[in-house]
Amino acid sequence: MTGTVWGICSAGSISNDFCLALVNNGSNVAAVAASDSGRAKQFATDFGLPRSYGSYEELANDGEVTVVYVGSVHTKHMQDALLFLQAGKHVLVEKPMGVNEGQVQQLVAAAKEKGVFLMEGFWTRCFPVVRRVQDLLDGGSLGRALHVCSDFGFKAPRADLTHRLWSKDLAGGGLLDIGCYVLQWASLALGRDALPEFRAVAAVGETGVDHHASIILQYPAGGTAMCSYSFDCAFHDRTVIKCERGIIWVDEMAHAPTKIRIMTVAADGTTATEDVEVALPRHTRDCGGRTVNFGNSEGFQYEVQEVERCLAEGLKESPQFTLSESALQVRLMDAVRKEIGVAYPADVA
Amino acid sequence: MTGTVWGICSAGSISNDFCLALVNNGSNVAAVAASDSGRAKQFATDFGLPRSYGSYEELANDGEVTVVYVGSVHTKHMQDALLFLQAGKHVLVEKPMGVNEGQVQQLVAAAKEKGVFLMEGFWTRCFPVVRRVQDLLDGGSLGRALHVCSDFGFKAPRADLTHRLWSKDLAGGGLLDIGCYVLQWASLALGRDALPEFRAVAAVGETGVDHHASIILQYPAGGTAMCSYSFDCAFHDRTVIKCERGIIWVDEMAHAPTKIRIMTVAADGTTATEDVEVALPRHTRDCGGRTVNFGNSEGFQYEVQEVERCLAEGLKESPQFTLSESALQVRLMDAVRKEIGVAYPADVA
Repeated sequence: MTGTVWGICSAGSISNDFCLALVNNGSNVAAVAASDSGRAKQFATDFGLPRSYGSYEELANDGEVTVVYVGSVHTKHMQDALLFLQAGKHVLVEKPMGVNEGQVQQLVAAAKEKGVFLMEGFWTRCFPVVRRVQDLLDGGSLGRALHVCSDFGFKAPRADLTHRLWSKDLAGGGLLDIGCYVLQWASLALGRDALPEFRAVAAVGETGVDHHASIILQYPAGGTAMCSYSFDCAFHDRTVIKCERGIIWVDEMAHAPTKIRIMTVAADGTTATEDVEVALPRHTRDCGGRTVNFGNSEGFQYEVQEVERCLAEGLKESPQFTLSESALQVRLMDAVRKEIGVAYPADVA
Repeated sequence: MTGTVWGICSAGSISNDFCLALVNNGSNVAAVAASDSGRAKQFATDFGLPRSYGSYEELANDGEVTVVYVGSVHTKHMQDALLFLQAGKHVLVEKPMGVNEGQVQQLVAAAKEKGVFLMEGFWTRCFPVVRRVQDLLDGGSLGRALHVCSDFGFKAPRADLTHRLWSKDLAGGGLLDIGCYVLQWASLALGRDALPEFRAVAAVGETGVDHHASIILQYPAGGTAMCSYSFDCAFHDRTVIKCERGIIWVDEMAHAPTKIRIMTVAADGTTATEDVEVALPRHTRDCGGRTVNFGNSEGFQYEVQEVERCLAEGLKESPQFTLSESALQVRLMDAVRKEIGVAYPADVA
């Protein structure tokens, strides 16, 4: 066994952030592929990678690469990930794994057939303070989780309506980009293997995609959640999990968090509060002067470590965000899109 | 003109808190009435009131009293308030003004017929920091309000299921008791004269009333809100109002708040944050050693001052919470109760 060797599919802004985390984690990265070979070459030079390719097929044929990170646009995730799975590579696909459940199920089936690892890049779940939240919820000291309130938004510039965020053809809109984060909080606390009932209200803009929405959810076990996301308001990103015997606050930036506050209520009604903070890993290696494009991207290291741990242990999926949770979440998002009237070209394919 | 002279209807725990505010405000309180004359007498003695009555009719006939505070149980608000309105008194009714829209409309009609002042006791709206929120929203410096997230709850003891909070016969359940607070935040920011569309999920308990619910709302002007309340979780009471160019956070206890944080986003994307805090008035007068029963009840003084201002100016309703807003809110609550399956005996009367 030679250990995990990474390949990078697509040299865009999210791949930049992911590769910075890989390099700073000391991981072994062998190659990058982009449809623009010049861009791939520059990426390889900056990051000090041995090889670059002008096509994804060449990366799929790279015999040294054991796992590929897919960082292409939403609408290409399925076909790109499929290429690597079919070549027998393990795959980490940036979220959303597919733009609808059909796409996700195809990937899950391909991974199973090839016996390789597959994970949707829900990096939130790999952050240390989120693992602490999970432990608290599973451990029972706060009692059952009863209600989740999660809210994430920012003001996305409207100058260019052909930008992927506003583009129906590129599976734009808030739900797949940021709505998925608020939904995974509900799922984490109230039922990781359950499909909730829901109601949604939303604003769908001139390009046919959702700018903002509010969704209320009711899980089979009885918990409820209210989740909202927005491309229209100033930055906000907080989550609260209310339990029978306490409350967990996940502070900004809750989708990639470093701070939580835990309030525990004792039997006599007195409360105790604990603040937990785990600072982000720091990036110290120079990669051609590159910096992160997205907030808290240094936290990609936690996801890298989780994938490498799973591969070292021979797991085919990560317990932090299982394939069944990926499938449930996209099924829910499909239903939400149906309710709010957002359909992508890929839905009818 | 002799100024405002208060009478108190019912000597229960909320009347206690309200009367402490009246006395500490230096207001003129002439009398209290309770069905138990001994209890009324003790109340009058403690608060130093000239007269006490063992029936509400006697208070209605008290020629000196100009305005009556109705602090009886929910299900008696309408008949009690009606008694005083018909006697030509101005009336402040503790929320909810009525348990359904029919009751509220009866009171509104009676006040109009008699040409007297009527207000539902939405004291939240009278707090200085809430007036500041209102000014900010009306002034436009933050742009339009787009989204409200409001959440209020506490763990109500379940030992006694005949308690009014759990009793269907006493119009119990979370909606009328605390849900009204989260809804008025949505209304304040997104449309004080508009009925929103909504969806709700809730948990209805063994006594037929709602323990907790989440409601999403969409206002005609386009804003959305998500509101939830709960009798099942540890104390929480926060509201966030997201606007085109900023965010207002209303900190605990948002239903009777002393602190807000305002973030304003400038055209170049930079943000400025202002904290506003207005401490509660302090109660310094001894009233038989009585203390407040509910959190921040000292803030009732703001409501007292608002009522006295309205009466001095000859207003028939308060612009802080108009009768039309009361009617819209109870119409919404009636519709929510229908959706979540909570009906009171008074609904079919």
